[in-house]
Amino acid sequence: MPENSTPGGNRRAPQGRRAVISREDLIAAALSLLGPHRSVSTLSLREVAREAGIAPNSFYRHFRDTDELAVVLIEEAGSALRRIIGQSRTRATTERSVVRSSIETFMEQLNPDEKFLPILLREGTVGSDAFKQAVEEQLLYFEEELCSDLVRLADINNTGIVHAPLVAKAITRLVFAMGATAMDLPESEHPRILEEMVVMVRMIIVGTQTMAREGAKLN
Amino acid sequence: MPENSTPGGNRRAPQGRRAVISREDLIAAALSLLGPHRSVSTLSLREVAREAGIAPNSFYRHFRDTDELAVVLIEEAGSALRRIIGQSRTRATTERSVVRSSIETFMEQLNPDEKFLPILLREGTVGSDAFKQAVEEQLLYFEEELCSDLVRLADINNTGIVHAPLVAKAITRLVFAMGATAMDLPESEHPRILEEMVVMVRMIIVGTQTMAREGAKLN
Repeated sequence: MPENSTPGGNRRAPQGRRAVISREDLIAAALSLLGPHRSVSTLSLREVAREAGIAPNSFYRHFRDTDELAVVLIEEAGSALRRIIGQSRTRATTERSVVRSSIETFMEQLNPDEKFLPILLREGTVGSDAFKQAVEEQLLYFEEELCSDLVRLADINNTGIVHAPLVAKAITRLVFAMGATAMDLPESEHPRILEEMVVMVRMIIVGTQTMAREGAKLN
Repeated sequence: MPENSTPGGNRRAPQGRRAVISREDLIAAALSLLGPHRSVSTLSLREVAREAGIAPNSFYRHFRDTDELAVVLIEEAGSALRRIIGQSRTRATTERSVVRSSIETFMEQLNPDEKFLPILLREGTVGSDAFKQAVEEQLLYFEEELCSDLVRLADINNTGIVHAPLVAKAITRLVFAMGATAMDLPESEHPRILEEMVVMVRMIIVGTQTMAREGAKLN
């Protein structure tokens, strides 16, 4: 928790504004302003301050400017998504169900009530270099975690795996690219896209396992 | 050739402007204005007319507005790229070299002198829904052509293939996603990314071939 947030941060200043507000409150205010067609880069400082119920000047206690807030939003979106998808991977037991349940969880995040995935899908391509770089960093974290999980599963199931970091990168980039396409299509198309993604990811996994087996035969 | 272009279209009107200009001349003028950091959506009608040496009003003989010109640029970029990459696939003989030479040709299109690939990579994510849809259409053409080539090669080499349209889609989407990342990185990183792409695409192909063999065993 940042140092200048207080547990009882609801004391009201004159004009019905709150005198003290936490960094988390500002992030929540910004998130509540975002929607399917609203990009992080269009948030204005006044608007976020108004939504949080503070004077615009109080914004600067927590962030240098809205660009810094936007990068924090991207980081929060990335870590929330990694937690959500990581949990669905851990719950699943067989390799088949790991693929399906991770992709199902990913696609649920395109649902209009969810905000984290659209932030990553949108800011990774539009907006400033700083935003793109923040998204790229989150994708690299995704890849690292997926890579350890793939190696762990290959070990447990004794299936073999080669180029594990590239397997993780291919799956992550492909799933995010398909997600970006899905985001622009009506929700009725999502189940079809989900099934396509399951086949594609299985194909990559079968590919690495076959390469591992054939490499082993050569030794 | 559009009906109002003439072979001798260089007759000068007053003020050194050309009286007659073809649709292709306007497209060429727009292309020459684009650069690594210049998006199609920022082109203004006056600027394109000036570059082409015509009066702004003459623009309307060929295009309703700059949005219509932008969509045509996306279509031209897509068909030029399909031709270039399709040729490199046809020249290669073995399956291994088909993958490598297609990806090499693709990555060459990120070179600062080339304009077609950046148009597709940029406008597929930024800009209006009409631009995104035009890029999506070009990617679908890519997938169709790649799919026929994959089926043809599987036939010649007797390797088997399942879910051919999804193999083509996975390769296309992955290669374009990796290309978009590469476009934002220094050129010195491109050879490493190329090698990563080659491994990823081979993995997908080995995956489908293995699934075809194992499916055949089950019958």
